Amino acid sequence: MTATEAGEPFRFPVRVYYEDTDAAGVVYYANYLRFLERARAEWLSAQGFDAAALKRGRGIAFAVRRLEIEYLHPARLGDRLDVTFAVTGCGRAWLAARQAIARGDEQIVTARVTVVCLDQDRWRPVRIPAELLRHTENTQ
Amino acid sequence: MTATEAGEPFRFPVRVYYEDTDAAGVVYYANYLRFLERARAEWLSAQGFDAAALKRGRGIAFAVRRLEIEYLHPARLGDRLDVTFAVTGCGRAWLAARQAIARGDEQIVTARVTVVCLDQDRWRPVRIPAELLRHTENTQ
Amino acid sequence: MTATEAGEPFRFPVRVYYEDTDAAGVVYYANYLRFLERARAEWLSAQGFDAAALKRGRGIAFAVRRLEIEYLHPARLGDRLDVTFAVTGCGRAWLAARQAIARGDEQIVTARVTVVCLDQDRWRPVRIPAELLRHTENTQ
Amino acid sequence: MTATEAGEPFRFPVRVYYEDTDAAGVVYYANYLRFLERARAEWLSAQGFDAAALKRGRGIAFAVRRLEIEYLHPARLGDRLDVTFAVTGCGRAWLAARQAIARGDEQIVTARVTVVCLDQDRWRPVRIPAELLRHTENTQ
Repeated sequence: MTATEAGEPFRFPVRVYYEDTDAAGVVYYANYLRFLERARAEWLSAQGFDAAALKRGRGIAFAVRRLEIEYLHPARLGDRLDVTFAVTGCGRAWLAARQAIARGDEQIVTARVTVVCLDQDRWRPVRIPAELLRHTENTQ
Repeated sequence: MTATEAGEPFRFPVRVYYEDTDAAGVVYYANYLRFLERARAEWLSAQGFDAAALKRGRGIAFAVRRLEIEYLHPARLGDRLDVTFAVTGCGRAWLAARQAIARGDEQIVTARVTVVCLDQDRWRPVRIPAELLRHTENTQ
Repeated sequence: MTATEAGEPFRFPVRVYYEDTDAAGVVYYANYLRFLERARAEWLSAQGFDAAALKRGRGIAFAVRRLEIEYLHPARLGDRLDVTFAVTGCGRAWLAARQAIARGDEQIVTARVTVVCLDQDRWRPVRIPAELLRHTENTQ
Repeated sequence: MTATEAGEPFRFPVRVYYEDTDAAGVVYYANYLRFLERARAEWLSAQGFDAAALKRGRGIAFAVRRLEIEYLHPARLGDRLDVTFAVTGCGRAWLAARQAIARGDEQIVTARVTVVCLDQDRWRPVRIPAELLRHTENTQ
């Protein structure tokens, strides 16, 4: 959970437990999406926001609208992985980002994700809090 | 999802997919709790109630307060399991039940569960809907 | 779990339980991938293959290599969904397919998935069993 | 992930993400078992063992044989929890332990767990590695 320098993507460490693996001996393909979301949540947190406060205080939630994911190599029980997150674009109500999961120098998973900011009662797009957008400019 | 005859516990079939297993080649121990809850949800449904309607319409949720679970044999990828549910006691705001998971004649898991009926906003015990209690008497 | 007629995609029903949802009140984004995989597993089964037999008998596993997924509408607790699977192309060691998740007439999720057939010990691509490829021709 | 002093249970921090919660707005009851297992895995690691090495190197796995769990208060999105683990007894092939999950001073979950050491091919009890038992004496 390191600070984000200019040009450097945000980085969050994850360890693989039995809960993450399946009978093929590798991390189950859906569970990498949990790792990706942990990095997004910790990035939000590092910007001074957090999912719980946004939900309770402002009634907004970020939801994934689109995901493209490549599974390059399998991760296995006990692996220590790094998950990265870097904003690549944004609009009033959405953010596009590039994410990756690596084990040391080896890329395990790469992904492109589009996230929308939603009013959680009506599940309609709403403007992303301005303070957050200001932060995202710095990470592009 | 068969009808409940007198003395017969409610029964719900489950199949084991990769998502349920772990790197030891068996169903991950927490995932049996998902199977147990599916049987409880389907039992509620079979009584004419369902979790979603109770949540939206009456603002109540059933939450597990206590669970004792024995893992007797492992279930594996592709297994077809039967999950049973039988009420063994109840109070104003709680239900006690016996549950089991079997593969044919072989018991995989046995459990005793206590469930409480909660107001989902304040997370405080509330009276179980009377119509439901009437049904539970028949399954004891 | 209906038969696959010419031109009709394979179809498998799924119900949404508490385990599938998250605190935003909708199905958690990674959990739709579990639904997609259930449909693939049941399709394999319907072709006379099953994941467990392929794993134990032949030492092969199908692994997702690439996934593109669009989240169009949220599914919620208690929803009854249909998951479809239709092969759109294949090579010696891979299959491409289109999948969707619908609630009645409303599409919830659409996906394109590329699956590879792997030797599970060395995690290297191996030829898809010929009998399976013969079947897939009929579903394109 | 702090060192274990005499009399002090082993302690491991966990944060609650969307993946852990359900539509009732709280952590899904099965997911606390994932938190409990993370603390056991990290405890093993802190003893110089780890689940992956035991699995690959010695062909052994620890499996939960019995669990008693009390759900005292719900945990919610964003919560920072501490999970504890303290061995309370052991035999040749099993360990009994007490575990708890707390949010600050408030206990969320308490559990008693019995874990067995298994040969992962035959799924039969085998003697716990002697070096590990020596360590467990210190944590009682």
